[in-house]
Amino acid sequence: MGSRVGKAVSYDGRGRFSVRDAEPVPPGEGEVRLDVAYCGVCGTDLHIAHGAMDGRVRPPRVIGHEMSGTVAELGPGVHGFSVGDRVVVRPLDSRGETPADRGFSHISRNLKFLGIDTPGAFQSSWTVPAFTLHRLPDRVDLRLAALAEPLAVACHDVRRAELVPGEIAVVIGGGPIGLLIALVARAAGARVLLSEVNPARLELAAELGLETVDPTVTDAVARVAELTRGAGADVVFEVSGSAAGALAMTELAGLRGRLVVVAIFPEPQPVRLFEFFWKELQLRGARVYEPADYERAIELLAAGALPLERLISRVEPLERLPSLFAELSAAPSGVKFLVDCRG
Amino acid sequence: MGSRVGKAVSYDGRGRFSVRDAEPVPPGEGEVRLDVAYCGVCGTDLHIAHGAMDGRVRPPRVIGHEMSGTVAELGPGVHGFSVGDRVVVRPLDSRGETPADRGFSHISRNLKFLGIDTPGAFQSSWTVPAFTLHRLPDRVDLRLAALAEPLAVACHDVRRAELVPGEIAVVIGGGPIGLLIALVARAAGARVLLSEVNPARLELAAELGLETVDPTVTDAVARVAELTRGAGADVVFEVSGSAAGALAMTELAGLRGRLVVVAIFPEPQPVRLFEFFWKELQLRGARVYEPADYERAIELLAAGALPLERLISRVEPLERLPSLFAELSAAPSGVKFLVDCRG
Repeated sequence: MGSRVGKAVSYDGRGRFSVRDAEPVPPGEGEVRLDVAYCGVCGTDLHIAHGAMDGRVRPPRVIGHEMSGTVAELGPGVHGFSVGDRVVVRPLDSRGETPADRGFSHISRNLKFLGIDTPGAFQSSWTVPAFTLHRLPDRVDLRLAALAEPLAVACHDVRRAELVPGEIAVVIGGGPIGLLIALVARAAGARVLLSEVNPARLELAAELGLETVDPTVTDAVARVAELTRGAGADVVFEVSGSAAGALAMTELAGLRGRLVVVAIFPEPQPVRLFEFFWKELQLRGARVYEPADYERAIELLAAGALPLERLISRVEPLERLPSLFAELSAAPSGVKFLVDCRG
Repeated sequence: MGSRVGKAVSYDGRGRFSVRDAEPVPPGEGEVRLDVAYCGVCGTDLHIAHGAMDGRVRPPRVIGHEMSGTVAELGPGVHGFSVGDRVVVRPLDSRGETPADRGFSHISRNLKFLGIDTPGAFQSSWTVPAFTLHRLPDRVDLRLAALAEPLAVACHDVRRAELVPGEIAVVIGGGPIGLLIALVARAAGARVLLSEVNPARLELAAELGLETVDPTVTDAVARVAELTRGAGADVVFEVSGSAAGALAMTELAGLRGRLVVVAIFPEPQPVRLFEFFWKELQLRGARVYEPADYERAIELLAAGALPLERLISRVEPLERLPSLFAELSAAPSGVKFLVDCRG
């Protein structure tokens, strides 16, 4: 404990970052100050680093939201946590919720996302509302725990699919979230087929023991028909954000199949609505997570059931984050990059 | 009873029809011969009359499937029905079902639709499998009972929406099925807003006591926001089959809103997938009906709860069906046209 001066990486707008000294922020009523251990780089962070979200982010701002850490200081009125507790943060602040949100806090219209709309975790010390915390079991490694946030996304997506053991799930797109969905769906008892076009990602997926198909080489619909004796997939996750994925998802699914749209499609996208009618398909959007998804993610982390270590491409010290952003913007590669914020 | 020679209207291909004498077909094992009372003209019949489905229909073929009638003769092995019983036919033959259909008989891949894939009801005598029959309570008028089939479509669509009393439902498109959905949804306890651009249809909807909006005149999204204190619709039925409807449906719905695609979109259609992600919307396709939907439709008919009489634009004798098809093809108007098949 102690609130000595630490480090923070500031996003200064127009794609520029700087490393600066940062005074820890004393926790107010209902808040907790954390010592950040690790923080991962998310696709959204890269999007911010490209200058695409300056209007929303309002730099200078410390970003970052895929973190693990320990409790360093409790504000007044915080119960249930002690200094030294190992935690992760569910970076959603839905205190602006209204009745028009119908109780769906996690997607409420005035939702604030920590690390985008408010300061984030790319710093040695982070002060957050206590209601965002989830406690980690002792046996969870803090490096792996930095994957709790994207893992909770995957848990939410799989939960939205109402996946039942023994079902066949196709995941379109093998980036970080696609891979995590595939691993979580497999852990939930599904037989998973990952559809991806990038050779490096296909190779990694195979190393993770995932069945894969490259739709530019193999007819994915025929492959699924083969796997399912003509029935088609029970569940399809569209994670690629590609026009081809949006058209293929309906063809891969069987009667009453459930499709989950995870990817962000900025523009209206051609979709085979006829297939929805003909096969009575269901499509569900999925965004971020609810508390239960974090609990499930932590359960999976604690059980050590998923080969998550293999997804961590590299760990860099906090000071190197600006150059890491530059590197990833120039030549995106790897799966998950972590920053060690322990100074 | 008695199997005297009757009349049938034959679809002869390329949009041509002829009236001919027809020998009643003796019912085989498990079959029942019906005296047809009334048969309605469906949008699909018009589509056939335009010559658009000759490949599937394989003329010459008697078409027609929105019928009411009485049992005239029982084939061997038929139990539970007696001569004189008033019935409607659920025109689906799913005997070709396989395990790949996962138990969804009504949309099974080898489904045969009576009146399209096999002979239909535009004739005085119709022989069908007994498993297609639903018995009518005595108090149901046979003219109104000819609406059981499209009403069952509407019941299926509303059931697919999992509509709860007190919810706000928007129906996009006020043709025969759109109007029936609006009436069934209202009977299920929803507050319904019908979105339609055709003045004659808007007028009829208003006469039926439905709240309407013309989206070319009034901002429908703003109107729904007003009705729902900003929450958006709980359920949206897309029945228009229009590009504007496919784009509007996602904007009309609130968080976790359920969209039901009823219309047939032959080509891939631009859809705002971003809204699925952002609001965690759900989309469900709906096709034909299941037995429970027929039971619900008959219950609604028997209760006399819906202003269905107002939907019957005209009743013509069977012999006039060819000229009726010509008239409707040239200038579509009205809602539901019935043919009196009682000779």
